[in-house]
Amino acid sequence: MDLRLPTGPVDLAAIPTDATPGFSGGKKDGTKALEELGPELSDLQERLFAEGTSGSTRNLLLVLQGMDTSGKGGTLRHTVGLVDPQGVRIHSFKAPTKEELAHDFLWRIENALPGPGYIGVFDRSHYEDVLIVRVRQLAPPEEIERRYAAINDFEKRLVDGGTRVVKCMLHISAETQKERLLARLDDPTKHWKFNPGDIDERALWPAYREAYEIALERTNSEVAPWHVIPSDRKWYRNLAIGRLLHEALSELDPQWPAADFDVEEQKRRLADEAPVE
Amino acid sequence: MDLRLPTGPVDLAAIPTDATPGFSGGKKDGTKALEELGPELSDLQERLFAEGTSGSTRNLLLVLQGMDTSGKGGTLRHTVGLVDPQGVRIHSFKAPTKEELAHDFLWRIENALPGPGYIGVFDRSHYEDVLIVRVRQLAPPEEIERRYAAINDFEKRLVDGGTRVVKCMLHISAETQKERLLARLDDPTKHWKFNPGDIDERALWPAYREAYEIALERTNSEVAPWHVIPSDRKWYRNLAIGRLLHEALSELDPQWPAADFDVEEQKRRLADEAPVE
Repeated sequence: MDLRLPTGPVDLAAIPTDATPGFSGGKKDGTKALEELGPELSDLQERLFAEGTSGSTRNLLLVLQGMDTSGKGGTLRHTVGLVDPQGVRIHSFKAPTKEELAHDFLWRIENALPGPGYIGVFDRSHYEDVLIVRVRQLAPPEEIERRYAAINDFEKRLVDGGTRVVKCMLHISAETQKERLLARLDDPTKHWKFNPGDIDERALWPAYREAYEIALERTNSEVAPWHVIPSDRKWYRNLAIGRLLHEALSELDPQWPAADFDVEEQKRRLADEAPVE
Repeated sequence: MDLRLPTGPVDLAAIPTDATPGFSGGKKDGTKALEELGPELSDLQERLFAEGTSGSTRNLLLVLQGMDTSGKGGTLRHTVGLVDPQGVRIHSFKAPTKEELAHDFLWRIENALPGPGYIGVFDRSHYEDVLIVRVRQLAPPEEIERRYAAINDFEKRLVDGGTRVVKCMLHISAETQKERLLARLDDPTKHWKFNPGDIDERALWPAYREAYEIALERTNSEVAPWHVIPSDRKWYRNLAIGRLLHEALSELDPQWPAADFDVEEQKRRLADEAPVE
């Protein structure tokens, strides 16, 4: 499953949203394949966490971007939810506060970075600062222009510091979004997820696509490449991101830290201790 | 299952660590009962989260305290792990940093409180500031004395602000701790969880028990009562805390927010929109 975006100009319209590259089965097989990945993902995550308690600075940052209804939340639940929540730090970025706007756009991102050994997940991220901000002209063009290189520098610094950065763009069609918005409208338990503004944003779909294409091309760096995940099929999206996480963690190959004490001595101490209580 | 601590003096030695109050089955039944609780817990959590996006300030704070190996981590994995990680914010409190020590003891706690609609979980908490701090004499007696009332005031403020506070003391015997420490020593994948200092702390077991008894008695308030969870049996601990969460969420009875827009109008807008893409 190679979902890594090739370098060079990006044409999102040419990338299918409903394909299942690298997986020949259907929904049932895909759901089962993800479930079977769970124990190994859990094991890798725990090793990474263990390393983090023993002086390693390595960790993993999963960046999830995509249009409304593309399934960032579903990915969190079904894929990220496979590992121990203790070792995961999820951050959902909303519209910036006044305080956040008074700082450089990366300030709030920096504050949300995962600690050593953690899997951090960004539900939206610093990319909003070159996506909605570009489409809605929320910053001067030269400031937006500056940000692409700033993001590359920032991510390179993260990688140099021991962070594995996994960036995923959840790619859906406008038609799929429409279906999902209608489904939300049809279900009273989903009305809270709907905002009339979501429909206004749809009129800007081509502008968002262009903003994504520019951002993807300009920040598709060697050290922190982008992955475009066909996301019309939820089960495939969950599986694909699960496999990317598995691949990244496997490459990190975290090891159980060796004891920095004499194990036998500690066993003797416990055996010989005075009665407790 | 009533694990609520009665008011008045606390005698932890008189509370069994290996009992299963309120549950007549064994491990297999208990594990199944917890699993069956999952969907309802998930549903309640999502309702709470939905409320939080619609102006409600209600949320839930689960405070986990207990001696080393009492199973705070296992509870996070097996019980808290049953609900959508998106709606959960876990905070593990370690020894305070210099910056944290330069502030009042509740400063770092305040900074870690869950937002509206979230389930916040404290793995250790402000109670360490009257537990290890008391046993190890890390603050002057009059400062420790001051803290019990400060905690009660703080928690009352949280409750008044819409937070349901669920406080659990994971109660194990010294013998169980010994077995669990030995098991960690016997398993190289668990050595990272072991610290020779853990054995030194065991010599202070009676002092910790006393510190817990004082803290439990003095902060067992009407609005934020304590629960003592017999935790020698992991499956029971997980189930008991799952049921407490379920009970607390059921009492909150969070409701799906009503649409603040005209549903039919929005459906028409989607049906009538100009072609997108």
